Amino acid sequence: MTAFDYNAGFDELKESYLFTEVREKVRKFLDVNGGSVINLGVGDVAFPLPRSAVRAFVKAAVELGDNVRFRGYPEENGYAFLRKAISERYLKQGLCVGEDEIFIGDGSKTDAASLPSVLGKADVLVCEPAYPVYPDAAAINGNRVYYLKGSKQNGFFPSPADAMPKPYVIWLCSPGNPTGAVITRPLLEEWVRFARQTGSLIIFDAAYASFVEEGEVKSIYEVDGAREVAVELFSFSKYAGFTNLRCSWTVIPREISVKGKRLNELWKRRQSVFFNGVSYPVQRAAEAVISGSGEAECMAIIERYKRNARIIGEALSARGVWYTGGKSSPYIWLECPRGTSSREMFKILLEQARIVGTPGCGFGPSGEGYFRLSCFLKESDASVAAERLYKTL
Amino acid sequence: MTAFDYNAGFDELKESYLFTEVREKVRKFLDVNGGSVINLGVGDVAFPLPRSAVRAFVKAAVELGDNVRFRGYPEENGYAFLRKAISERYLKQGLCVGEDEIFIGDGSKTDAASLPSVLGKADVLVCEPAYPVYPDAAAINGNRVYYLKGSKQNGFFPSPADAMPKPYVIWLCSPGNPTGAVITRPLLEEWVRFARQTGSLIIFDAAYASFVEEGEVKSIYEVDGAREVAVELFSFSKYAGFTNLRCSWTVIPREISVKGKRLNELWKRRQSVFFNGVSYPVQRAAEAVISGSGEAECMAIIERYKRNARIIGEALSARGVWYTGGKSSPYIWLECPRGTSSREMFKILLEQARIVGTPGCGFGPSGEGYFRLSCFLKESDASVAAERLYKTL
Repeated sequence: MTAFDYNAGFDELKESYLFTEVREKVRKFLDVNGGSVINLGVGDVAFPLPRSAVRAFVKAAVELGDNVRFRGYPEENGYAFLRKAISERYLKQGLCVGEDEIFIGDGSKTDAASLPSVLGKADVLVCEPAYPVYPDAAAINGNRVYYLKGSKQNGFFPSPADAMPKPYVIWLCSPGNPTGAVITRPLLEEWVRFARQTGSLIIFDAAYASFVEEGEVKSIYEVDGAREVAVELFSFSKYAGFTNLRCSWTVIPREISVKGKRLNELWKRRQSVFFNGVSYPVQRAAEAVISGSGEAECMAIIERYKRNARIIGEALSARGVWYTGGKSSPYIWLECPRGTSSREMFKILLEQARIVGTPGCGFGPSGEGYFRLSCFLKESDASVAAERLYKTL
Repeated sequence: MTAFDYNAGFDELKESYLFTEVREKVRKFLDVNGGSVINLGVGDVAFPLPRSAVRAFVKAAVELGDNVRFRGYPEENGYAFLRKAISERYLKQGLCVGEDEIFIGDGSKTDAASLPSVLGKADVLVCEPAYPVYPDAAAINGNRVYYLKGSKQNGFFPSPADAMPKPYVIWLCSPGNPTGAVITRPLLEEWVRFARQTGSLIIFDAAYASFVEEGEVKSIYEVDGAREVAVELFSFSKYAGFTNLRCSWTVIPREISVKGKRLNELWKRRQSVFFNGVSYPVQRAAEAVISGSGEAECMAIIERYKRNARIIGEALSARGVWYTGGKSSPYIWLECPRGTSSREMFKILLEQARIVGTPGCGFGPSGEGYFRLSCFLKESDASVAAERLYKTL
């Protein structure tokens, strides 16, 4: 027995991580009842890796086995070829993001969870319902968490007018997980103004940005003044089906300063201690999917997921169930009919429709009474799920 | 400008991470003087990935592109097939390590740096000279660091008798980085006893364990009572040339308790927030190199590195230069002749021999006057390096 105490943050976490809990319940149900379920729970992708990714990945792997072309430790913050491709991708959107402002990581979750640890005692502001990693990581990092309540009324994007005016690390996720809602440009401008006035730092989680429709906000850098106060996270997981491969990027503009030091430099120093970089084959695969035919392949797959969302959304509408998301997002966020609780809803859908979804309450108290359906599905599953939802609700 | 302070731990770090600093100096030298150098600096491998690894990796990548065999998010703590293979590998050494005690990670550095953050305010004990990540991560994690001095006299493995008897997180690295020294069984037993008496936790970094000779300590679990107080880290980087691919494992025995909770459970919970697992192709490649022909391939490569170390060691001996390591380790740790400082030695070898090594002082004050040479080299480079060292020293 050691004489240590554990990090007090663990006491603030729920018994088990939401998705683990859901997985356990489904396993038990299937053990008892047999058969199968359609999984609209965890936000994992349904289609295999794009061909362009596999091709680039295999080619790079062969290089690593070659005497001449072998490479050892990856470039710590990402290979220049990938950072260049990402910078050019921003340029196509009319945005200037320097290659030295881009950090390649093994998943947005890792960077998201670790970013606040670079700061001293900072308070964290979460617009809930939210991805559980934001508050959980804050607890483990020793940050105090403040919440703003999302609701049907505010479109699940609270306004900074509801926050006490002081410095926070502000989490904004658009399109939102779990709500699928996209932040409006005027509201995002308000948030950037708030951050500049209070000395806050925004972490803009754009993991689902490739799902937004033309004209909607794709990147926080579309807003003037964001470069001084906003970090942006992008993930290859949902964009290109990289949930297994693990690749992401984090943008930290040179302009963001933290007590006289550049946040960009602090993060670089932090990564040199805590991280060894992403492998060459993964970065080559990532490069392949943000250019040429790779990009087209990814966008075609995203369209298929969005079509699923439409089909499921139509079933809900036909039953008069209110929902948001599903248009610029793989997620549908529905209001449980007739005052059903989130967990009851989980039970009903699992037992009566053999559909697995995620109880909204798992994303924060304002998620109670709501339910998340992920549309990362094969088309046949989406049709069956829509039918079963129509019958059950 | 944000209103935040940065994590105070950053002020305790040296200006730039040692290996980054060395890289910069070499770059400047080559810019001015042209030509090339032989790099015995960073501990990166010289040979390409073993064939068995490439084969398994490519096969798995193709599965990820297949409609039926595609897999999404990796198992959070590692696929069962790899944890089973590792458990069996321990069994062959006569050690019982359960599959649920093994966590697959993307590099020992990541796990090493993050482990102390799971505890409350813990003091950290580092036997220096040491891998800079131990004290640097402790600083960022907010841990106070105590040092024990390694020296020629104690074979660069201080005894617990020199430590104040209180609970610490104790770092032990054997074979040592940078010294290449292997801890003796009696001394390791002393450390385990000390940990049990004081309620300390030992983190045994076995990243170089595959270099030790028959009969020497390979794993801390060879010592009775270690399971209650010791975590063990193993890396595929130096064993199988995975510095680019990124794979490692961490053993956390069920017996280790931290104020009534199992450290094993705490770490699992921590990983669910901060990590998304290691990709399937990498884990298949890792499985391939710890069994059958893969293992033989790796051991053959290790023998080649050790032969390099012998050649370089002979050149040093012929010049009467004292050194340790190089026998059960890819590193040679030499005493700079005639009272030369570590940094002078770096300059002399770079400018006169065009050899890059690592100044011992970068690993802690007791490293001053010493110098690390890495023997991860092709044979031809090793011979030339040995010759140049003989001429220059």
